[in-house]
Amino acid sequence: MDGFYQCEANYVPLTPISFLERAAFVYEKSPSIIYDDITYTWKETRNRCVKLASALSIIGVKSKHVVATFAPNVPAHYELQFAVPMAGAIISSLNTSLDPPTLATTLQQLEPKVIFVDHQYIQIVTEAFKLLSPTPFCLVVLIGGKNYTDVTPDTLDYDDLLSLGKSDFKIIHPNDECDPISVNFTSGSTGKAKGVIYSHRSTYLNSLAVIFRYDMKKMPVFLWTVDMFRCNGWCFPWVMAALGGTNVCLREVKAEGIFKSIVTHKVTHLCGPPSILEKIADLNNNKQGAITTRVDVIVAGPLPPLEVILKVEKFGFDIHHGYGMSEALGPMTDRSLRTSDEKEYHNNELAKIRCREGTHNILMEDVDVKDPDTMTSVPSDGKTIGEVMFRGNVVMLGYLKNLEGTQKAFKGGWYRTGDLGIRNPDGDIVMKDRASDSINIEGEIVSTIEIERVIRSHSFVKEVAVVGKSNNDVIGETPCAFVTLKNDCCLRSNDIIKICEDNLLPRIMIPVNVSFGDLPVNSTGKVLKFVLREKAKTIGPSIGHE
Amino acid sequence: MDGFYQCEANYVPLTPISFLERAAFVYEKSPSIIYDDITYTWKETRNRCVKLASALSIIGVKSKHVVATFAPNVPAHYELQFAVPMAGAIISSLNTSLDPPTLATTLQQLEPKVIFVDHQYIQIVTEAFKLLSPTPFCLVVLIGGKNYTDVTPDTLDYDDLLSLGKSDFKIIHPNDECDPISVNFTSGSTGKAKGVIYSHRSTYLNSLAVIFRYDMKKMPVFLWTVDMFRCNGWCFPWVMAALGGTNVCLREVKAEGIFKSIVTHKVTHLCGPPSILEKIADLNNNKQGAITTRVDVIVAGPLPPLEVILKVEKFGFDIHHGYGMSEALGPMTDRSLRTSDEKEYHNNELAKIRCREGTHNILMEDVDVKDPDTMTSVPSDGKTIGEVMFRGNVVMLGYLKNLEGTQKAFKGGWYRTGDLGIRNPDGDIVMKDRASDSINIEGEIVSTIEIERVIRSHSFVKEVAVVGKSNNDVIGETPCAFVTLKNDCCLRSNDIIKICEDNLLPRIMIPVNVSFGDLPVNSTGKVLKFVLREKAKTIGPSIGHE
Repeated sequence: MDGFYQCEANYVPLTPISFLERAAFVYEKSPSIIYDDITYTWKETRNRCVKLASALSIIGVKSKHVVATFAPNVPAHYELQFAVPMAGAIISSLNTSLDPPTLATTLQQLEPKVIFVDHQYIQIVTEAFKLLSPTPFCLVVLIGGKNYTDVTPDTLDYDDLLSLGKSDFKIIHPNDECDPISVNFTSGSTGKAKGVIYSHRSTYLNSLAVIFRYDMKKMPVFLWTVDMFRCNGWCFPWVMAALGGTNVCLREVKAEGIFKSIVTHKVTHLCGPPSILEKIADLNNNKQGAITTRVDVIVAGPLPPLEVILKVEKFGFDIHHGYGMSEALGPMTDRSLRTSDEKEYHNNELAKIRCREGTHNILMEDVDVKDPDTMTSVPSDGKTIGEVMFRGNVVMLGYLKNLEGTQKAFKGGWYRTGDLGIRNPDGDIVMKDRASDSINIEGEIVSTIEIERVIRSHSFVKEVAVVGKSNNDVIGETPCAFVTLKNDCCLRSNDIIKICEDNLLPRIMIPVNVSFGDLPVNSTGKVLKFVLREKAKTIGPSIGHE
Repeated sequence: MDGFYQCEANYVPLTPISFLERAAFVYEKSPSIIYDDITYTWKETRNRCVKLASALSIIGVKSKHVVATFAPNVPAHYELQFAVPMAGAIISSLNTSLDPPTLATTLQQLEPKVIFVDHQYIQIVTEAFKLLSPTPFCLVVLIGGKNYTDVTPDTLDYDDLLSLGKSDFKIIHPNDECDPISVNFTSGSTGKAKGVIYSHRSTYLNSLAVIFRYDMKKMPVFLWTVDMFRCNGWCFPWVMAALGGTNVCLREVKAEGIFKSIVTHKVTHLCGPPSILEKIADLNNNKQGAITTRVDVIVAGPLPPLEVILKVEKFGFDIHHGYGMSEALGPMTDRSLRTSDEKEYHNNELAKIRCREGTHNILMEDVDVKDPDTMTSVPSDGKTIGEVMFRGNVVMLGYLKNLEGTQKAFKGGWYRTGDLGIRNPDGDIVMKDRASDSINIEGEIVSTIEIERVIRSHSFVKEVAVVGKSNNDVIGETPCAFVTLKNDCCLRSNDIIKICEDNLLPRIMIPVNVSFGDLPVNSTGKVLKFVLREKAKTIGPSIGHE
């Protein structure tokens, strides 16, 4: 068979840049971005991004250079998600809740040529720079704060930079679609944050995966409640260009602003961590005016209590729940919550449903639960525990400057999540725990999630984390519970033990130590179990069942 | 920047085979195929395809071999769209309206190792084989006709072949996603049919494009009214696996069967040539029972009259109209018809709307109207004519054993459609004509579509085709109209001239010759203008304006 070949006409490296170029043509006059009193069209957004890419080239940004951001979800931050790759460079949106020392470490690892900083955060960045010695050369571009431009000598204003750019700049497409497009840092809940590298190909394909996952139609209205520094805003900057939708930007993700935006702009989609549900549930619907349209809200992470979910649904939201991680470009499996199905939801069944993470999306090649040593799949029996693994085109390229970490993550040709799970007979994967958070008790692997679920069901308990503690007098570890109580609530260790017994937890799963107090959390609110494990070591002998 | 690499975990060659593997897992027990009293689930379809791929390997089909089909839209034909690529081979579904001599020529060019023939067509294939000397070795597998297995000595039965296969066969994925997956023959309306080669990558991406184009949601119900031999059924076998939908197969695409299937199975989508609209419009709604769901019907090609469209809409159909070709894997640009918008549709405006082909889909990189010599874009002024060109990942690999044809088609790094068009100020592309069908009159390029549109508006006219005729006494050509009248209608040449004058066609566009009679059409019903051009040469001197 001959007569054919690959050329420019039939092969174009996949890149999300293409979505913007098409949007400027197909959705030319439709609104791309709304923020306070600013509204841009897709043609304007494309033209601004071209000028910005040109300006980056003019100030010396070259192919494969890293450009960092430290900003909330404002229009400039959105534009950078396109403009930086269009200049051939790699974008890294940094977590704005980092403190100066952590930010300094991150910058040292990342070595950006330019950092775009919102005026709100300039002090933190300035302090971080002071901690770096010698100070690396990194141009600071200030977003939305002309008054602050004298902070450091190397500071440029965003609008001034934009005006440097040429509108006929030739967009730089990747030569190879597997070239890096961005670096996103993990939340570091299991240790030091890692820089996760995405490719043009993976972000292009994942943008399509997002659209499929939520059955999104053309021209949605997206409210920016997920941070752009989380997996490039779960790839939504690119998704919205692909669909020609409208981005409603928000500087602060607060309940009133969310509600007002939904009512004013007829928002169709928003997403983020499950805490977004609590923010929405806190709203006073009558005060804000009714939401007249259905809103899809997509969350990833442990869900809040049923009462919160029911309240959010009553406001007019359809909730989707996903499981994912930075390494998979965001949510990777998904299921819709259907609380209207009472049989499934009442009788305190929510906690079980919470753990069922659904099935993998259309662009992910394979998801499996495997024995990590033999790499054989566990049976779909709803009980055999294995490690959740997956492979496909929407998996990271690897970890920044950490070849060993990448090799460990990809050992055996699968991405090893480090999460434990089982497979139900219906094919659903049920997450049990992070492998590193599970406990080995008397030779048996026990999921701390199960224990935490039971303790959290007590109405006085606000938060709980269970870790393993080595004891000389037993094989393996014993469970150790750290409990935060709600305001004005009081419980003793034996109340915690009792609720475990009442819920028929097996003997070995009943905590041997219970401590009360605040839990250590990272910048994204995740409990730092490795800190608790250290703390558990210092706790004296078992308290026994008082 | 280092620390990352490409491996099995994060790079998988794109292929539609993946859609079936995922469907068997995610949509395991959902119906995949319904045909008469047969219903398969996605798990069953996957298992049957694996066994069929295994059987193909057992009988000697190897990587890059071609396997042909000559069958209607029955389940076996659907299974082959997956099983052949899963055996590493290339599928070529042949047009079942080919006559034995044309089929013989096609087989000679294609050199298939196996041909799957539905019992309905075995005589045609047998006759075609007889015309080939020496008879090539090509195994015949007969679909659905055990009684016919004695037709040739090398004939196998489909079910017998399937039972040879092993269920643990290891599916062959492409090493390179740009490897060929199928060959589809053009309809040959502009000359000899060409074998158009598709890759795994292009069909995977085009399947996603189809889903976007029609805002398709998960688990649709698709009625098979488009032939699987047209661009692999516009990629719908693969689309349906991607979405976990239900395929309702039809042996014959007739009005009653269509209506019955829609009512019984709650069909959500069907597609095909515009003649499908005429079939639907002919139905007696009261007799058949009402359609209670909305059905999306997708057509590509010149639309039938407004009255047909309105009638189809009234039945409960939403009509989408596309423009495409085999080289672009089917419809490539698209727009929804909105006859409810009266301003746009009445006042006989439909004809104009018909020609506006909308904008390019999400997976096509670029669509442009260019000067074919200078390769510069025409202005978006709604009048400058250029050649419609496009480029992107959903373009063919090239023409089978026709490197010269491929080079001509891809000259300048764009696929040259050979179609003329303009670009409207709103960005829409408006097709004017096939370049080869336009006429050069007194040095000006004239679109025959415009002339045909006016003549067709006469209520006595059933069909019309206009071609150019060289005349010694003028520069270039003169328009020559071939007209088919409706039954029992009578018109003379000067009636045709008059309607052109009444519609204010410029003088040079008014036909100089008018002939009445049936038009020569190809197997897909397209008028063969090259035959008419030959015929025009033999017509005597201009008839003048009688």
